[in-house]
Amino acid sequence: MSEVARPTLSDALTERMLELIRTGGHRPGDRLPSTRELSQRFAVTTPTLREALRRLEATGAIELRHGSGIYVGAAIERLVLPNPNMREVRTAQLLELLDARILIEPPLAALAAEQAGDEELAALRQALDEASRHLRGEDAELHDANMTFHRATARMAGNSVLHEVVDSLLTVHGPEQREILQIFDDRRRDHEEHLAILEAIEARDAAQAEQRMRAHLVDVKTVIEHRMQPPR
Amino acid sequence: MSEVARPTLSDALTERMLELIRTGGHRPGDRLPSTRELSQRFAVTTPTLREALRRLEATGAIELRHGSGIYVGAAIERLVLPNPNMREVRTAQLLELLDARILIEPPLAALAAEQAGDEELAALRQALDEASRHLRGEDAELHDANMTFHRATARMAGNSVLHEVVDSLLTVHGPEQREILQIFDDRRRDHEEHLAILEAIEARDAAQAEQRMRAHLVDVKTVIEHRMQPPR
Repeated sequence: MSEVARPTLSDALTERMLELIRTGGHRPGDRLPSTRELSQRFAVTTPTLREALRRLEATGAIELRHGSGIYVGAAIERLVLPNPNMREVRTAQLLELLDARILIEPPLAALAAEQAGDEELAALRQALDEASRHLRGEDAELHDANMTFHRATARMAGNSVLHEVVDSLLTVHGPEQREILQIFDDRRRDHEEHLAILEAIEARDAAQAEQRMRAHLVDVKTVIEHRMQPPR
Repeated sequence: MSEVARPTLSDALTERMLELIRTGGHRPGDRLPSTRELSQRFAVTTPTLREALRRLEATGAIELRHGSGIYVGAAIERLVLPNPNMREVRTAQLLELLDARILIEPPLAALAAEQAGDEELAALRQALDEASRHLRGEDAELHDANMTFHRATARMAGNSVLHEVVDSLLTVHGPEQREILQIFDDRRRDHEEHLAILEAIEARDAAQAEQRMRAHLVDVKTVIEHRMQPPR
C-alpha cells in the first residue's frame, strides 16, 4: 500500500485549516498562526502540516511568504482557477481558448461601457499608455500591459465570476500570446485595437465596445491560425 | 523564519513530476512509479515527496488511489479548474454565477444543436430519463442527473475550454442548486425545461436551443432570487 494513499490526515487537516480561516473571519492578506502554532493546535507533526499547507498553497487559498509566515491567499474566495500545472497549451486548445474568449469578452466590454466608474476608466487609459511605451521594448512588459487591459475590461463589467473566468483564461495562455506579439506590425495593430475598444467604453457605447472587442479577438485568432500553419 | 516558506525543494519537485509526466507521454489514468521509486529517483525523503504529491493532487494533476498507487489525473490537461477550497458560495456570488451561466450556456446549446453526434444525443436523452426517475426521490441523485444534463450540453458544443468553464461553474454551485430543488413543482418545471432544450437540440434548431437554455437559466435565477429574499 502506498503510504500517501491513506484517506489522509492531511485531508482532514486541510479542512480544519479552511475552517480556521472561515470561522476566524480571515480575509485575503490576513496573517495566520505560525507553522509551530498550527502544529500544536492541530496536534500534528510538521511534515503532516506541510502536506496540508502545500495543498492549500497550490490552489491559492494560502500564501507562504519566505521568512514571514502564512497568509490567507487572494484565490480563497474564487470559484474558478487557472490550472497551475499547465505548462504548454496545445494548438487545438489555444484556438478553443480564443473561441472561449470571443464568446465571453465582447459582452463584458458592453457591460463595461455601461457600468465602468471614472476611476476604473482612468486606470485603463493608464494601462494602455503603459503598453504604448513597450511597443518597441520587452515582450514580457508589453504582454503584461496588454493582459492588464483585458483583465481590467472584464473586471469593469461588474461580475466577479466572469472576471475570474477571463483571468483564468488569460493566465494560461500567457506564453503563447507573448510569442504571437513578436512582430511589430501585429503589436501596433493589437495596441490600436485596444485603444479603439477603450474609446467605445469611454463613450459609453456598449454596442460598439462589444463589436470592437469581438473584431479584435477574431483578429488575434486569425494571426494565431496563420502562425500555426506549417511552412510550405 | 517559517520552515515551510523556503523557496522550496517541493516547488522543484512539483516541476520534475510534471516533467516526468509530460516527457513520459503519460495520459490521464496512466499509472506512475510508486512513492518509493519516486523518492529514489529524485533523491528526496518521503515527506518532501509527499508535499509535492499533495500539491499535484489538490489541483487534479495526479490521483492517489488508496492501496493502489499514483495515477495521472484527469485535470492535468485542463486550463481551468473549480476552486477545490470553495465551501460555501456567498449570495452575491451565486447570482453572479447564474449570470455567468446565462452568458455562456445558451450559445453552447446552439452549438450543440449544430454539432452533437447521435450517440451524444442518445446519452443526453438517457440522462434526462434518469433524472425523471428521481423527481420524487433523493436530492443528490436528481441533482447529479441535472448537472449531467448541463455538462453534457456544454460538452456537445465541441469546445473543451468552454466545457471546462461550465464544468467548473457547475461544480462550485452544486450544494446551493440542490437546496433550490427541494420543492417538487420547481423540480418538475426544471426537468420539463431540460426536456424542451433537448428537443430543440435533437431537432437541430440552434436558435430555439439557445433561447430555451437562456429562458431556463433565467428561471433558475428568478427562483434563487425569490428564495433569497428575507421572510417578511
